[in-house]
Amino acid sequence: MTYHETSFYFPAPVEQRFCSQCGSALSRKIPPDDNRVRDICENCGAIHYKNPLVVVGTVPVWEDKILLCRRAIEPRYDKWTLPAGFMELSETSSLGAIRETTEEAGADITLKQLFTVIDVPNVNQVHLYFLANANSPKLNPGPESLEARYFGIDEIPWDELSFRTVAQTLKRYIEDKERGVFTTHYLSLS
Amino acid sequence: MTYHETSFYFPAPVEQRFCSQCGSALSRKIPPDDNRVRDICENCGAIHYKNPLVVVGTVPVWEDKILLCRRAIEPRYDKWTLPAGFMELSETSSLGAIRETTEEAGADITLKQLFTVIDVPNVNQVHLYFLANANSPKLNPGPESLEARYFGIDEIPWDELSFRTVAQTLKRYIEDKERGVFTTHYLSLS
Repeated sequence: MTYHETSFYFPAPVEQRFCSQCGSALSRKIPPDDNRVRDICENCGAIHYKNPLVVVGTVPVWEDKILLCRRAIEPRYDKWTLPAGFMELSETSSLGAIRETTEEAGADITLKQLFTVIDVPNVNQVHLYFLANANSPKLNPGPESLEARYFGIDEIPWDELSFRTVAQTLKRYIEDKERGVFTTHYLSLS
Repeated sequence: MTYHETSFYFPAPVEQRFCSQCGSALSRKIPPDDNRVRDICENCGAIHYKNPLVVVGTVPVWEDKILLCRRAIEPRYDKWTLPAGFMELSETSSLGAIRETTEEAGADITLKQLFTVIDVPNVNQVHLYFLANANSPKLNPGPESLEARYFGIDEIPWDELSFRTVAQTLKRYIEDKERGVFTTHYLSLS
């Protein structure tokens, strides 16, 4: 049913030119009773708000080792990440975090507490990471991962991590593990 | 610069029919390397993902009383809410929470910890509420509020609250206040 090469497709950017409801060209202006410029359709009246997205992931642990996946996709191809991805419609953030862990690493996990909530305003995202216990060491990386493996705390490839949210989450995990108490951490990256 | 009545405009729904990049009619199909049906443009290749949105708000406290606003807008017109609204592009969730508190109540607050993280999958939202101290009892409700006032814990209008996330956040606040320790709570509404 796909009529084009895979490379033909791209995620639609935040910038939009046509109305998703009627196809007319959009205007950039402040709607009535608002204080920000939005993309507005002066033909049908639709206001096209754009807002930050939620990324959900896990810190899966097996016998004191942490699961990381080597990315098979851009951005940050070949770098190591905690399993994570965009939260989908109709799911909770915890079920999304489990889904991403299954898809990217094939790990069977039991989710524990919400661990980090990290704003990334420069890319309009909020990342939520949950602690998780792996139920077995078995892994089966999906197409978005070149490989998946468990790292001891002294083996973490700090210089080869994919994203700052991953590094921050791992850092907080190690700190909390050392003091013996895991809490939920909120932080904002600049 | 507005050519139409305020009532002409409406927020564009999740359902979309035309491509925001080229204006062509969209197809509903699973993109290559994906496992969900998306809105795809077979003319220009744009994939139009839709994802949950983040709502940010506060629990502002002045002398053991909690600030609530009576809504001047739909949905839940005339019901009482904690100050909250959609997180905007380029802001952090904490700055968004402060902004909403200023816009809806005119309250001058100092933000404290992240308090509740609540999934609301039936409307595709994640709500983040922060604890806050009011720096003065002065209020100046904006156009989205009919009024704003402080309620003692025994005065909270439980039957006249706007949203389940507000009720859950107030309930956790009272429980944590009674035991003398405030933590960050994660929960999912069905």
